[in-house]
Amino acid sequence: MNGPKSVRASWRKHNSVMFFQSPIVEHLIDSFRRLPGVGRKSAERYALHLLSLPPDVAYEFSDAVRAARERITWCPVCRNLTDVTPCTICADERRDHSLVCVVEQPTGAMAIERGGSYNGVYHVLHGVLNPLEGIGPDELHLDLLLNRLESGKVTEVIVATNTTAEGEATALYLARRIGSMGVKVSRIAHGVPMGGGVEYADSVTLARALEGRSRI
Amino acid sequence: MNGPKSVRASWRKHNSVMFFQSPIVEHLIDSFRRLPGVGRKSAERYALHLLSLPPDVAYEFSDAVRAARERITWCPVCRNLTDVTPCTICADERRDHSLVCVVEQPTGAMAIERGGSYNGVYHVLHGVLNPLEGIGPDELHLDLLLNRLESGKVTEVIVATNTTAEGEATALYLARRIGSMGVKVSRIAHGVPMGGGVEYADSVTLARALEGRSRI
Repeated sequence: MNGPKSVRASWRKHNSVMFFQSPIVEHLIDSFRRLPGVGRKSAERYALHLLSLPPDVAYEFSDAVRAARERITWCPVCRNLTDVTPCTICADERRDHSLVCVVEQPTGAMAIERGGSYNGVYHVLHGVLNPLEGIGPDELHLDLLLNRLESGKVTEVIVATNTTAEGEATALYLARRIGSMGVKVSRIAHGVPMGGGVEYADSVTLARALEGRSRI
Repeated sequence: MNGPKSVRASWRKHNSVMFFQSPIVEHLIDSFRRLPGVGRKSAERYALHLLSLPPDVAYEFSDAVRAARERITWCPVCRNLTDVTPCTICADERRDHSLVCVVEQPTGAMAIERGGSYNGVYHVLHGVLNPLEGIGPDELHLDLLLNRLESGKVTEVIVATNTTAEGEATALYLARRIGSMGVKVSRIAHGVPMGGGVEYADSVTLARALEGRSRI
Protein backbone atom coordinates (compact mmCIF):
# COMPACT_ATOMS: atom_id res chain seq x y z
CA MET A 1 0.00 0.00 0.00
CA ASN A 2 2.88 2.38 0.77
CA GLY A 3 5.28 3.15 -2.03
CA PRO A 4 8.78 4.47 -1.45
CA LYS A 5 7.44 8.03 -1.50
CA SER A 6 5.12 7.57 1.48
CA VAL A 7 7.87 5.70 3.35
CA ARG A 8 10.11 8.72 2.92
CA ALA A 9 7.30 11.05 4.00
CA SER A 10 6.72 9.11 7.21
CA TRP A 11 10.45 8.98 7.79
CA ARG A 12 10.60 12.77 7.72
CA LYS A 13 7.64 12.95 10.06
CA HIS A 14 9.55 10.68 12.45
CA ASN A 15 11.79 13.45 13.66
CA SER A 16 9.21 16.16 14.19
CA VAL A 17 5.95 14.62 15.42
CA MET A 18 5.12 14.46 19.12
CA PHE A 19 4.74 10.73 19.49
CA PHE A 20 2.73 10.30 22.55
CA GLN A 21 0.06 12.93 22.05
CA SER A 22 0.62 14.08 25.60
CA PRO A 23 3.06 16.88 26.48
CA ILE A 24 3.31 15.56 30.05
CA VAL A 25 4.54 12.14 28.93
CA GLU A 26 6.83 13.78 26.36
CA HIS A 27 8.30 15.97 29.09
CA LEU A 28 8.93 12.90 31.26
CA ILE A 29 10.62 11.10 28.35
CA ASP A 30 12.76 14.18 27.67
CA SER A 31 13.75 14.30 31.34
CA PHE A 32 14.98 10.71 31.21
CA ARG A 33 16.84 11.39 27.97
CA ARG A 34 19.04 13.89 29.79
CA LEU A 35 20.53 11.09 31.89
CA PRO A 36 23.93 9.92 30.62
CA GLY A 37 23.72 7.23 27.95
CA VAL A 38 19.92 7.17 27.79
CA GLY A 39 18.44 7.31 24.28
CA ARG A 40 14.87 7.77 23.10
CA LYS A 41 13.89 4.10 23.42
CA SER A 42 15.26 3.63 26.93
CA ALA A 43 13.66 6.91 28.02
CA GLU A 44 10.28 5.74 26.67
CA ARG A 45 10.70 2.46 28.51
CA TYR A 46 11.57 4.17 31.81
CA ALA A 47 8.69 6.65 31.44
CA LEU A 48 6.11 3.98 30.68
CA HIS A 49 7.41 1.86 33.53
CA LEU A 50 6.97 4.78 35.93
CA LEU A 51 3.46 5.39 34.63
CA SER A 52 2.59 1.75 35.25
CA LEU A 53 3.75 1.86 38.88
CA PRO A 54 1.35 2.47 41.77
CA PRO A 55 1.20 6.25 42.36
CA ASP A 56 2.91 5.98 45.77
CA VAL A 57 5.97 4.29 44.29
CA ALA A 58 6.23 6.88 41.52
CA TYR A 59 5.92 9.74 44.06
CA GLU A 60 8.61 8.10 46.18
CA PHE A 61 10.89 8.14 43.13
CA SER A 62 10.11 11.82 42.55
CA ASP A 63 10.77 12.61 46.22
CA ALA A 64 14.06 10.67 46.20
CA VAL A 65 15.35 12.85 43.35
CA ARG A 66 14.33 16.09 45.06
CA ALA A 67 15.57 15.09 48.51
CA ALA A 68 18.93 13.97 47.16
CA ARG A 69 19.49 17.18 45.23
CA GLU A 70 18.36 19.29 48.19
CA ARG A 71 20.36 17.58 50.88
CA ILE A 72 23.51 16.29 49.20
CA THR A 73 26.41 18.73 49.04
CA TRP A 74 30.16 18.51 48.52
CA CYS A 75 32.26 17.80 51.59
CA PRO A 76 34.31 20.99 52.26
CA VAL A 77 37.39 18.84 52.99
CA CYS A 78 37.46 16.20 50.23
CA ARG A 79 34.70 17.39 47.86
CA ASN A 80 33.02 13.99 47.91
CA LEU A 81 29.20 13.93 47.95
CA THR A 82 27.79 13.98 51.46
CA ASP A 83 24.74 14.79 53.56
CA VAL A 84 26.81 15.73 56.63
CA THR A 85 29.69 18.22 57.02
CA PRO A 86 32.41 17.02 56.89
CA CYS A 87 31.57 13.70 55.21
CA THR A 88 31.55 10.48 57.23
CA ILE A 89 34.88 9.39 55.71
CA CYS A 90 36.65 12.68 56.61
CA ALA A 91 35.07 12.57 60.09
CA ASP A 92 36.10 8.97 60.74
CA GLU A 93 38.94 8.98 63.29
CA ARG A 94 39.75 5.31 62.63
CA ARG A 95 40.79 6.07 59.03
CA ASP A 96 44.33 6.98 58.08
CA HIS A 97 44.25 10.73 57.38
CA SER A 98 47.89 10.75 56.25
CA LEU A 99 46.89 8.86 53.09
CA VAL A 100 44.84 10.72 50.45
CA CYS A 101 43.46 8.99 47.36
CA VAL A 102 42.70 11.38 44.48
CA VAL A 103 39.81 10.31 42.21
CA GLU A 104 38.10 11.96 39.25
CA GLN A 105 34.50 11.49 40.36
CA PRO A 106 32.59 10.38 43.47
CA THR A 107 31.98 7.07 41.63
CA GLY A 108 35.74 6.43 41.85
CA ALA A 109 35.69 6.79 45.63
CA MET A 110 32.54 4.67 45.70
CA ALA A 111 34.27 1.88 43.74
CA ILE A 112 37.32 1.91 46.02
CA GLU A 113 35.13 1.88 49.16
CA ARG A 114 33.34 -1.11 47.71
CA GLY A 115 36.67 -2.93 47.54
CA GLY A 116 36.87 -2.50 51.30
CA SER A 117 40.67 -2.67 51.50
CA TYR A 118 41.43 1.08 51.53
CA ASN A 119 41.57 2.83 54.88
CA GLY A 120 42.76 6.33 53.94
CA VAL A 121 40.73 9.37 52.93
CA TYR A 122 39.81 10.81 49.50
CA HIS A 123 39.97 13.91 47.37
CA VAL A 124 37.49 14.22 44.51
CA LEU A 125 38.58 16.38 41.55
CA HIS A 126 35.20 16.39 39.75
CA GLY A 127 37.02 16.27 36.43
CA VAL A 128 40.46 15.91 34.85
CA LEU A 129 42.86 18.28 33.15
CA ASN A 130 41.68 18.75 29.58
CA PRO A 131 43.30 21.68 27.79
CA LEU A 132 41.14 21.11 24.67
CA GLU A 133 38.01 21.74 26.74
CA GLY A 134 39.65 24.53 28.70
CA ILE A 135 39.89 22.60 31.98
CA GLY A 136 43.13 23.57 33.69
CA PRO A 137 44.37 23.36 37.31
CA ASP A 138 42.19 26.34 38.30
CA GLU A 139 38.99 24.75 36.98
CA LEU A 140 39.74 21.59 38.99
CA HIS A 141 40.30 23.73 42.13
CA LEU A 142 43.60 21.97 42.75
CA ASP A 143 44.41 24.72 45.27
CA LEU A 144 41.96 23.00 47.66
CA LEU A 145 43.99 19.79 47.44
CA LEU A 146 47.32 21.64 47.75
CA ASN A 147 46.09 23.61 50.79
CA ARG A 148 45.08 20.34 52.36
CA LEU A 149 48.57 18.94 51.81
CA GLU A 150 50.23 22.05 53.22
CA SER A 151 48.85 21.24 56.65
CA GLY A 152 51.69 18.69 56.75
CA LYS A 153 49.58 15.78 58.00
CA VAL A 154 49.47 14.02 54.64
CA THR A 155 52.45 11.78 53.84
CA GLU A 156 51.23 10.05 50.66
CA VAL A 157 48.87 10.88 47.80
CA ILE A 158 47.62 7.97 45.69
CA VAL A 159 46.46 9.17 42.27
CA ALA A 160 43.53 6.99 41.14
CA THR A 161 42.38 8.97 38.10
CA ASN A 162 41.14 6.91 35.15
CA THR A 163 43.59 5.33 32.73
CA THR A 164 42.53 7.64 29.88
CA ALA A 165 44.92 10.13 28.24
CA GLU A 166 43.45 12.95 30.37
CA GLY A 167 43.55 10.86 33.55
CA GLU A 168 47.21 9.95 32.95
CA ALA A 169 48.11 13.56 32.18
CA THR A 170 46.40 14.68 35.39
CA ALA A 171 48.32 12.04 37.35
CA LEU A 172 51.58 13.27 35.86
CA TYR A 173 50.72 16.90 36.63
CA LEU A 174 49.82 16.03 40.24
CA ALA A 175 53.01 13.99 40.65
CA ARG A 176 55.14 17.01 39.64
CA ARG A 177 53.17 19.57 41.58
CA ILE A 178 52.75 17.56 44.80
CA GLY A 179 56.18 15.92 44.56
CA SER A 180 57.78 19.37 44.78
CA MET A 181 56.02 19.81 48.15
CA GLY A 182 57.88 16.82 49.59
CA VAL A 183 54.80 14.58 49.71
CA LYS A 184 55.11 11.06 48.29
CA VAL A 185 52.91 10.57 45.21
CA SER A 186 51.94 7.13 43.89
CA ARG A 187 49.74 5.85 41.08
CA ILE A 188 47.41 2.86 41.32
CA ALA A 189 48.77 -0.21 39.50
CA HIS A 190 47.72 -0.93 35.93
CA GLY A 191 47.54 -4.52 34.77
CA VAL A 192 45.40 -7.51 33.94
CA PRO A 193 42.16 -7.41 35.98
CA MET A 194 41.64 -10.12 38.60
CA GLY A 195 39.56 -12.98 37.22
CA GLY A 196 40.32 -11.89 33.66
CA GLY A 197 42.16 -14.07 31.19
CA VAL A 198 45.53 -12.79 29.99
CA GLU A 199 44.44 -13.58 26.42
CA TYR A 200 41.59 -11.04 26.67
CA ALA A 201 43.72 -8.14 27.90
CA ASP A 202 44.61 -5.50 25.30
CA SER A 203 48.26 -4.94 24.38
CA VAL A 204 48.63 -1.63 26.26
CA THR A 205 47.31 -3.22 29.46
CA LEU A 206 49.64 -6.19 29.00
CA ALA A 207 52.63 -3.90 28.44
CA ARG A 208 51.79 -2.06 31.68
CA ALA A 209 51.25 -5.34 33.51
CA LEU A 210 54.71 -6.60 32.44
CA GLU A 211 56.35 -3.29 33.27
CA GLY A 212 54.76 -3.25 36.75
CA ARG A 213 55.61 -6.90 37.55
CA SER A 214 56.50 -7.78 41.12
CA ARG A 215 58.52 -10.64 42.57
CA ILE A 216 56.53 -13.49 44.14
CA MET B 1 49.91 -6.08 50.42
CA ASN B 2 46.63 -7.96 50.15
CA GLY B 3 46.79 -11.73 50.16
CA PRO B 4 43.99 -13.92 48.80
CA LYS B 5 42.38 -13.94 52.24
CA SER B 6 41.79 -10.19 52.42
CA VAL B 7 40.55 -10.21 48.80
CA ARG B 8 37.91 -12.74 49.79
CA ALA B 9 37.00 -10.72 52.87
CA SER B 10 36.44 -7.58 50.82
CA TRP B 11 34.46 -9.59 48.29
CA ARG B 12 32.08 -10.66 51.03
CA LYS B 13 31.81 -7.08 52.22
CA HIS B 14 30.85 -6.06 48.68
CA ASN B 15 27.31 -7.31 48.98
CA SER B 16 26.44 -5.94 52.39
CA VAL B 17 28.14 -2.56 52.85
CA MET B 18 26.35 0.72 52.11
CA PHE B 19 28.68 2.07 49.48
CA PHE B 20 28.05 5.73 49.48
CA GLN B 21 27.92 6.47 53.20
CA SER B 22 24.74 8.44 52.61
CA PRO B 23 21.30 6.85 52.92
CA ILE B 24 19.85 9.62 50.72
CA VAL B 25 22.15 8.83 47.81
CA GLU B 26 21.62 5.10 48.35
CA HIS B 27 17.87 5.64 48.24
CA LEU B 28 18.20 7.55 44.97
CA ILE B 29 20.36 4.78 43.48
CA ASP B 30 17.83 2.17 44.62
CA SER B 31 15.05 4.20 42.99
CA PHE B 32 16.85 4.17 39.66
CA ARG B 33 17.56 0.46 39.98
CA ARG B 34 13.82 -0.21 39.92
CA LEU B 35 13.63 1.04 36.33
CA PRO B 36 13.59 -1.79 33.76
CA GLY B 37 17.05 -2.95 32.71
CA VAL B 38 18.94 -0.62 35.06
CA GLY B 39 21.67 -2.28 37.12
CA ARG B 40 23.78 -0.99 39.99
CA LYS B 41 26.38 0.75 37.81
CA SER B 42 23.88 2.58 35.58
CA ALA B 43 21.86 3.59 38.64
CA GLU B 44 24.99 5.05 40.27
CA ARG B 45 25.75 6.92 37.06
CA TYR B 46 22.24 8.37 36.80
CA ALA B 47 22.20 9.34 40.49
CA LEU B 48 25.57 11.08 40.36
CA HIS B 49 24.58 12.86 37.15
CA LEU B 50 21.44 14.17 38.84
CA LEU B 51 23.47 15.32 41.84
CA SER B 52 25.82 17.21 39.55
CA LEU B 53 22.99 19.09 37.81
CA PRO B 54 21.93 22.59 38.88
CA PRO B 55 19.21 22.20 41.56
CA ASP B 56 16.51 23.66 39.27
CA VAL B 57 17.08 21.03 36.60
CA ALA B 58 17.01 18.23 39.16
CA TYR B 59 13.78 19.58 40.68
CA GLU B 60 12.26 19.80 37.21
CA PHE B 61 13.06 16.11 36.73
CA SER B 62 11.42 15.30 40.07
CA ASP B 63 8.35 17.35 39.16
CA ALA B 64 8.09 15.72 35.71
CA VAL B 65 7.85 12.30 37.37
CA ARG B 66 5.21 13.41 39.86
CA ALA B 67 3.14 15.37 37.32
CA ALA B 68 3.14 12.50 34.86
CA ARG B 69 2.02 9.95 37.42
CA GLU B 70 -0.63 12.32 38.79
CA ARG B 71 -2.12 13.42 35.50
CA ILE B 72 -1.69 10.48 33.13
CA THR B 73 -4.49 7.91 33.20
CA TRP B 74 -5.75 5.17 30.91
CA CYS B 75 -8.19 6.21 28.19
CA PRO B 76 -11.55 4.61 29.11
CA VAL B 77 -12.08 3.67 25.44
CA CYS B 78 -8.74 2.26 24.25
CA ARG B 79 -6.74 2.04 27.51
CA ASN B 80 -3.84 3.97 26.01
CA LEU B 81 -2.06 6.46 28.28
CA THR B 82 -3.61 9.91 28.15
CA ASP B 83 -4.00 13.20 30.00
CA VAL B 84 -7.47 13.87 28.53
CA THR B 85 -10.63 11.70 28.49
CA PRO B 86 -11.04 10.14 25.99
CA CYS B 87 -7.53 10.27 24.54
CA THR B 88 -6.72 12.53 21.59
CA ILE B 89 -6.66 9.55 19.21
CA CYS B 90 -10.09 8.27 20.28
CA ALA B 91 -11.47 11.82 20.15
CA ASP B 92 -10.06 12.52 16.67
CA GLU B 93 -12.97 12.53 14.20
CA ARG B 94 -10.62 12.40 11.21
CA ARG B 95 -9.37 8.97 12.17
CA ASP B 96 -10.98 5.76 10.98
CA HIS B 97 -12.87 4.39 13.99
CA SER B 98 -13.88 1.22 12.14
CA LEU B 99 -10.25 0.04 12.28
CA VAL B 100 -8.83 -1.00 15.67
CA CYS B 101 -5.19 -1.94 16.14
CA VAL B 102 -4.55 -4.12 19.20
CA VAL B 103 -1.14 -3.64 20.85
CA GLU B 104 0.46 -5.09 23.98
CA GLN B 105 1.74 -1.87 25.49
CA PRO B 106 1.41 1.90 24.92
CA THR B 107 4.92 1.76 23.40
CA GLY B 108 3.47 -0.34 20.58
CA ALA B 109 0.89 2.35 19.75
CA MET B 110 3.65 4.94 20.09
CA ALA B 111 5.82 3.09 17.57
CA ILE B 112 2.98 2.77 15.05
CA GLU B 113 2.07 6.46 15.45
CA ARG B 114 5.69 7.29 14.78
CA GLY B 115 5.41 5.47 11.45
CA GLY B 116 2.71 7.96 10.53
CA SER B 117 0.92 5.69 8.04
CA TYR B 118 -1.83 4.32 10.32
CA ASN B 119 -5.08 6.22 10.55
CA GLY B 120 -7.26 3.94 12.67
CA VAL B 121 -7.60 3.77 16.45
CA TYR B 122 -5.96 1.52 19.07
CA HIS B 123 -6.68 -0.87 21.88
CA VAL B 124 -3.95 -1.42 24.46
CA LEU B 125 -3.98 -4.79 26.27
CA HIS B 126 -1.30 -3.93 28.86
CA GLY B 127 -0.01 -7.48 28.62
CA VAL B 128 -0.39 -10.75 26.73
CA LEU B 129 -1.94 -14.10 27.53
CA ASN B 130 0.54 -16.04 29.64
CA PRO B 131 -0.95 -19.11 31.35
CA LEU B 132 2.33 -19.82 33.18
CA GLU B 133 2.09 -16.46 34.93
CA GLY B 134 -1.66 -16.77 35.41
CA ILE B 135 -2.57 -14.09 32.87
CA GLY B 136 -5.74 -15.16 31.09
CA PRO B 137 -8.44 -13.28 29.12
CA ASP B 138 -9.92 -11.87 32.35
CA GLU B 139 -6.62 -10.38 33.52
CA LEU B 140 -6.22 -8.65 30.14
CA HIS B 141 -9.78 -7.24 30.45
CA LEU B 142 -10.59 -8.50 26.96
CA ASP B 143 -14.27 -7.86 27.77
CA LEU B 144 -13.53 -4.13 27.29
CA LEU B 145 -12.32 -4.84 23.75
CA LEU B 146 -15.21 -7.21 23.00
CA ASN B 147 -17.79 -4.70 24.31
CA ARG B 148 -16.21 -2.12 22.06
CA LEU B 149 -16.60 -4.41 19.04
CA GLU B 150 -20.19 -5.24 19.94
CA SER B 151 -21.18 -1.65 19.18
CA GLY B 152 -20.96 -2.80 15.51
CA LYS B 153 -18.93 0.19 14.31
CA VAL B 154 -15.67 -1.75 14.05
CA THR B 155 -15.13 -3.70 10.83
CA GLU B 156 -11.52 -4.81 11.22
CA VAL B 157 -9.16 -5.57 14.10
CA ILE B 158 -5.42 -5.58 13.35
CA VAL B 159 -3.51 -7.59 15.95
CA ALA B 160 -0.08 -6.02 16.45
CA THR B 161 1.09 -7.95 19.51
CA ASN B 162 4.80 -8.78 19.61
CA THR B 163 6.15 -11.74 17.69
CA THR B 164 6.96 -13.69 20.85
CA ALA B 165 5.32 -17.01 21.71
CA GLU B 166 2.89 -15.21 24.05
CA GLY B 167 2.18 -12.46 21.53
CA GLU B 168 1.44 -15.02 18.81
CA ALA B 169 -0.78 -17.05 21.15
CA THR B 170 -2.69 -13.89 22.07
CA ALA B 171 -3.13 -13.07 18.37
CA LEU B 172 -4.51 -16.55 17.73
CA TYR B 173 -6.88 -16.31 20.70
CA LEU B 174 -8.15 -12.91 19.56
CA ALA B 175 -8.59 -14.18 15.99
CA ARG B 176 -10.85 -17.00 17.20
CA ARG B 177 -12.75 -14.95 19.74
CA ILE B 178 -13.31 -11.87 17.56
CA GLY B 179 -13.71 -13.84 14.34
CA SER B 180 -16.76 -15.55 15.85
CA MET B 181 -18.34 -12.09 16.25
CA GLY B 182 -18.21 -11.50 12.49
CA VAL B 183 -15.44 -8.89 12.69
CA LYS B 184 -12.47 -9.27 10.32
CA VAL B 185 -9.22 -9.98 12.21
CA SER B 186 -5.79 -9.48 10.64
CA ARG B 187 -2.19 -9.79 11.85
CA ILE B 188 0.62 -7.38 10.97
CA ALA B 189 3.05 -8.81 8.43
CA HIS B 190 6.23 -10.53 9.59
CA GLY B 191 9.28 -10.39 7.38
CA VAL B 192 12.67 -8.87 6.72
CA PRO B 193 12.88 -5.33 8.18
CA MET B 194 13.19 -2.43 5.72
CA GLY B 195 16.79 -1.37 5.28
CA GLY B 196 17.98 -4.72 6.67
CA GLY B 197 20.04 -7.14 4.62
CA VAL B 198 18.43 -10.49 3.86
CA GLU B 199 21.65 -12.18 4.99
CA TYR B 200 21.24 -10.81 8.51
CA ALA B 201 17.66 -12.00 9.02
CA ASP B 202 17.19 -15.08 11.19
CA SER B 203 15.73 -18.24 9.67
CA VAL B 204 12.30 -17.95 11.33
CA THR B 205 11.89 -14.38 10.03
CA LEU B 206 12.98 -15.47 6.55
CA ALA B 207 10.51 -18.37 6.57
CA ARG B 208 7.72 -15.94 7.51
CA ALA B 209 8.89 -13.46 4.88
CA LEU B 210 8.76 -16.14 2.17
CA GLU B 211 5.40 -17.43 3.37
CA GLY B 212 3.94 -13.91 3.35
CA ARG B 213 5.32 -12.94 -0.08
CA SER B 214 3.21 -10.73 -2.30
CA ARG B 215 3.16 -10.26 -6.08
CA ILE B 216 4.90 -7.13 -7.38
